[in-house]
Amino acid sequence: AKIAFLPGDGVGPEVANAARRVLTQVAKKHDLSIGFNEFAFGGAAIDACGDPLPEETKAACLEADAILLGAVGGPKWDMSEKRPEQGLLALRSALAVYANLRPIQVAKGMEAHSPLKAEIAADVDMLIVRELTGGMYFGKRQEGKDKATDECLYTRGEVERVARIAFDAARKRKGRVTSVDKANVLATSRLWRNAVNELHASEYSDVELDHMLVDAMSMKLIQSPSAFDVVLTENLFGDILSDEASVLSGSIGLAPSASLGDGTRGLYEPIHGSAPDIAGEDKANPVGTLASAAMMMRYSLGKGEIADDIENAVAKALAAGRGTADIGGKDSCTSFTDYICEIV
Amino acid sequence: AKIAFLPGDGVGPEVANAARRVLTQVAKKHDLSIGFNEFAFGGAAIDACGDPLPEETKAACLEADAILLGAVGGPKWDMSEKRPEQGLLALRSALAVYANLRPIQVAKGMEAHSPLKAEIAADVDMLIVRELTGGMYFGKRQEGKDKATDECLYTRGEVERVARIAFDAARKRKGRVTSVDKANVLATSRLWRNAVNELHASEYSDVELDHMLVDAMSMKLIQSPSAFDVVLTENLFGDILSDEASVLSGSIGLAPSASLGDGTRGLYEPIHGSAPDIAGEDKANPVGTLASAAMMMRYSLGKGEIADDIENAVAKALAAGRGTADIGGKDSCTSFTDYICEIV
Ligand SMILES: CC(C)[C@H](C(=O)O)[C@@H](O)C(=O)O
Ligand SMILES: CC(C)[C@H](C(=O)O)[C@@H](O)C(=O)O
Repeated sequence: AKIAFLPGDGVGPEVANAARRVLTQVAKKHDLSIGFNEFAFGGAAIDACGDPLPEETKAACLEADAILLGAVGGPKWDMSEKRPEQGLLALRSALAVYANLRPIQVAKGMEAHSPLKAEIAADVDMLIVRELTGGMYFGKRQEGKDKATDECLYTRGEVERVARIAFDAARKRKGRVTSVDKANVLATSRLWRNAVNELHASEYSDVELDHMLVDAMSMKLIQSPSAFDVVLTENLFGDILSDEASVLSGSIGLAPSASLGDGTRGLYEPIHGSAPDIAGEDKANPVGTLASAAMMMRYSLGKGEIADDIENAVAKALAAGRGTADIGGKDSCTSFTDYICEIV
Repeated sequence: AKIAFLPGDGVGPEVANAARRVLTQVAKKHDLSIGFNEFAFGGAAIDACGDPLPEETKAACLEADAILLGAVGGPKWDMSEKRPEQGLLALRSALAVYANLRPIQVAKGMEAHSPLKAEIAADVDMLIVRELTGGMYFGKRQEGKDKATDECLYTRGEVERVARIAFDAARKRKGRVTSVDKANVLATSRLWRNAVNELHASEYSDVELDHMLVDAMSMKLIQSPSAFDVVLTENLFGDILSDEASVLSGSIGLAPSASLGDGTRGLYEPIHGSAPDIAGEDKANPVGTLASAAMMMRYSLGKGEIADDIENAVAKALAAGRGTADIGGKDSCTSFTDYICEIV
């Protein structure tokens, strides 16, 4: 398998290299041939060649079986005309990975680190399916000093294809989808709700479906997070709600993501950002990236058993009290990864 | 003082009448003349005359010193062409109440009801200032079966006037403003950030200002809510974040709001909705509406001491363990209100 390896900025290289080490280890054990090719991306690529997504990087990603990404961004580029985030959005769009899967679980032993009361955090196990290549992120914009606009646009086809991913996922889980919108105000949300309802009626009536307004959802996520199975939503709402949900687990450093399109090629990255404040200090939590690497094995390489191995090793380590400082542990990024390599 | 009284739908009449009783009581005690005129609004007005904001209601609100609103909406009107929410948006717009103030406090004794760990919920005391008459709520829309759009538009003037309210409020509080946007993606957010920065530099450099991305804010609100003083944000982000923040206090039923424009006229309503599931059962928590009535005394009627009286009575009742079921109490809406009328 051919993996495009994009370490990116800040703690990105640290966590991406952790995942690369673990992937190399499990591949050897399972006799799977896997090759990593590294490319410039994000702020690092702006510095190297003035473009957050250089042509060479983009071409390599389009040819790869999967892309493993660390993180991008940093204060250095925040005010510049070319920003690392533009590269990330351009990459998602070029790969046409319209479905961003963000599983949120509170691993045993982690309730103590959740900001929520332990009894509310326990048993959380949801999958957020966020639309990733449409909406306000990719609409027409008018920049301006005195007036600015952003457009949110959705087509029925864009809603249906990501809804399909959510319904299919629900069939393999607890069979429930909660679709989140703001249909009492937005036209795109009314289109969203209608398209989801009609697809449900025609092809997925075995799945339980309900709808929730985004403001109500931002409450329910912290009042009764264990009530949710699959949560389906549009790009911007998904950005906000998945970050909110990620801290239920105790730290955003634990949360992985997979971005998928029509084929098996996928983009895998932790939910957290480049954390410039701790970059270079070997303090970053590699769990989100290791769990993303597991998702890569499952979704892009068709190796569910290897994915299970990685996930089990991580769960075992956390249950044994191993972990980085953000979850109250004593490990460095390296020492935690060493331990996973030992037990995987 | 002339109060336009709009009970609305669901539990709206129950909580609005509770506030009316308490206001009448304190007005008598303080020799303040105050008159309530009731008007049809929301779903009730759709049923009565086919319009969620009848002309008569609108005219009366424009002439009043303040508007006291219960809640609007309900499943009965969700799928109809005319919806109660349209009346609410039209009223906000007609009154030009561009600044929605949503104070979030965790009252003593309420930490136990917060979904957050008590030590995180303690000491929360923030004021969310949400822009209320611009953004996606009022932009051009294209409704459609196969394609739909919503436009978000902000002008510099719209940002400045609401930012002024936030900075002025911060000067009377802890002197800090956190402005929330999505400047790494949206053009309107970049305009927002620039306008806030420039106003800050020219007129409010004594106030501490920082900026946070909306996704990060949705995390910080539950990780370290006591870190915030004044939170300033645009309409849609404010809708989501203020609902999220309201449950920190234990129940959305506790949270009040005031919507203000350039003069002293204001619109006062609890944050919660019409709660059709418990409507007519005398179970609704009147605290959010009582606290909104206190804000009315302070901001529209210039009676800060009466506002303090109401707020102190409510705090005393809660500290004494009185309260409705949503905060673990045994009171009905009526019995709680009786108690407040006794001690106020
Ligand atoms: C970096 C940023 C553009 C990105 C987004 O908003 O999608 C990030 O927050 C994410 O959630 O992956
Ligand atoms: C009823 C709805 C239109 C409204 C809004 O979104 O502004 C409500 O959620 C609120 O926050 O006051």
